[in-house]
Amino acid sequence: MQFVSYLDADGSEAVGRVEGTRVHRLRGLDRIDATVTPERLRDAEADPAGVDLDGLALLPVVPRPGKVLCVGLNYRSHIDETGRELPTYPVWFPKYASSLIAHGEAITLPPESAQVDYEAELAVVIGRSGRRITRDQAPDHVLGYTVANDVTMRDFQYKTHQWMQGKAWDRSTPLGPVLVTPDEIDPADLDIALRLNGREMQSSHTSLLIFDIPELISVASRFARLEPGDVILTGTPGGVGFRRDPQVFLADGDVVEVEIGGIGVLRNTVRAEVVA
Amino acid sequence: MQFVSYLDADGSEAVGRVEGTRVHRLRGLDRIDATVTPERLRDAEADPAGVDLDGLALLPVVPRPGKVLCVGLNYRSHIDETGRELPTYPVWFPKYASSLIAHGEAITLPPESAQVDYEAELAVVIGRSGRRITRDQAPDHVLGYTVANDVTMRDFQYKTHQWMQGKAWDRSTPLGPVLVTPDEIDPADLDIALRLNGREMQSSHTSLLIFDIPELISVASRFARLEPGDVILTGTPGGVGFRRDPQVFLADGDVVEVEIGGIGVLRNTVRAEVVA
Repeated sequence: MQFVSYLDADGSEAVGRVEGTRVHRLRGLDRIDATVTPERLRDAEADPAGVDLDGLALLPVVPRPGKVLCVGLNYRSHIDETGRELPTYPVWFPKYASSLIAHGEAITLPPESAQVDYEAELAVVIGRSGRRITRDQAPDHVLGYTVANDVTMRDFQYKTHQWMQGKAWDRSTPLGPVLVTPDEIDPADLDIALRLNGREMQSSHTSLLIFDIPELISVASRFARLEPGDVILTGTPGGVGFRRDPQVFLADGDVVEVEIGGIGVLRNTVRAEVVA
Repeated sequence: MQFVSYLDADGSEAVGRVEGTRVHRLRGLDRIDATVTPERLRDAEADPAGVDLDGLALLPVVPRPGKVLCVGLNYRSHIDETGRELPTYPVWFPKYASSLIAHGEAITLPPESAQVDYEAELAVVIGRSGRRITRDQAPDHVLGYTVANDVTMRDFQYKTHQWMQGKAWDRSTPLGPVLVTPDEIDPADLDIALRLNGREMQSSHTSLLIFDIPELISVASRFARLEPGDVILTGTPGGVGFRRDPQVFLADGDVVEVEIGGIGVLRNTVRAEVVA
């Protein structure tokens, strides 16, 4: 099953089941948050009439996650282009709920940064609370999968040895368009690609993740309890703009598409932020 | 004025104004969260009878902050002991709401870490939402100040070049006991010290912060909107256990006290976690 988070015509938050080109609003479940479970999502009654998916005011698949845990350096092709060593433990860094935007919303280019870059990523949404989750238990804690663009301000990322201030910018990080439940896809067997204004910049396959999804869930839950609605961004393959020659950065008017097979296309324009 | 967050006798969350040894519960303001303002806190009517502060089930001063932004390497004495360069931009890393515990609660020693360390820090609680806050505007965005112990699992901190997995452990980080409003203290003129089982391990003064509080608020709000209830941990002075010879780590039964002049003493025992 596939789900979207969106604003209903009356401006209230809603979750809808996607069937073809139609979205059927769930009853009694208005937001993917810490109260959700895989069963609540699966069994929620849906409005039979539905509305058109096209033109819907989408929200990030999880509008206000408690935690957004991101992983760097998780594809060999990206590690090679950075010149770093192969990690023996996942490289974690944070984003915030305020970092996220929806499919179709504009990626904000803040005037402070001259090096805003893209990163195609598979994202996991947690569906069941857990601490010290084993690899074997991990699939039971997944609500579903979606697509992320881990937009990064490179000049801020490298201001110090810690990356947070390059990663956690408000309204920078698209997450969506849909949440796909685990019965529909094998997250270790998906094509992942990114196109900038139609030109393919990244192309890989999720089987190449160094730390796979059960491992990431297991390792993260060792230090912090994972809660429903928490999001894990699993890392990006090679081809980021910063490591190209010449370098490529996002510019006002650009269109960025991240496509993951079996999930869909996350498409966003880029807009220079006007600061009053 | 001074305030505490606590659980009332009926188990509900409460905020109380501290007057001497008594706590007067506020009416219409049960939690320091994103809805608070400096004026709401100051002007809230308080129950005239009050209860004894001693024995109250305190909560972290902010029980569920939206963001906990931490700064590393912000005292020269600590930078020198780490052998790192003087930073030209604050070194940011995250904790989560689930990392926090109250004054009097036990710091959890997880079985996974053999190097749990202490860090005395002054903490700032945000009281007014803002983005791109200037240094001059920064004081207007402060709700108050409190004490933190930025407990760190050193063996996890240094598993990779990013620190998050050493900093964001559940129930590791004391925050409290009280929130002191800005009219009561000058945050740039406070003694700060840490005692482990009565022995002084850290001793410094907040005038020695490399990036002062207006600067931290200004820099953080450039990348993310600060919201009421967000907490900034401002960094620790020299004397951490990991950099001593011989090294010192927290052990079951230890008592750690962080004292900041004008705010108070944050006292916590250390308890080995029993994992089922």
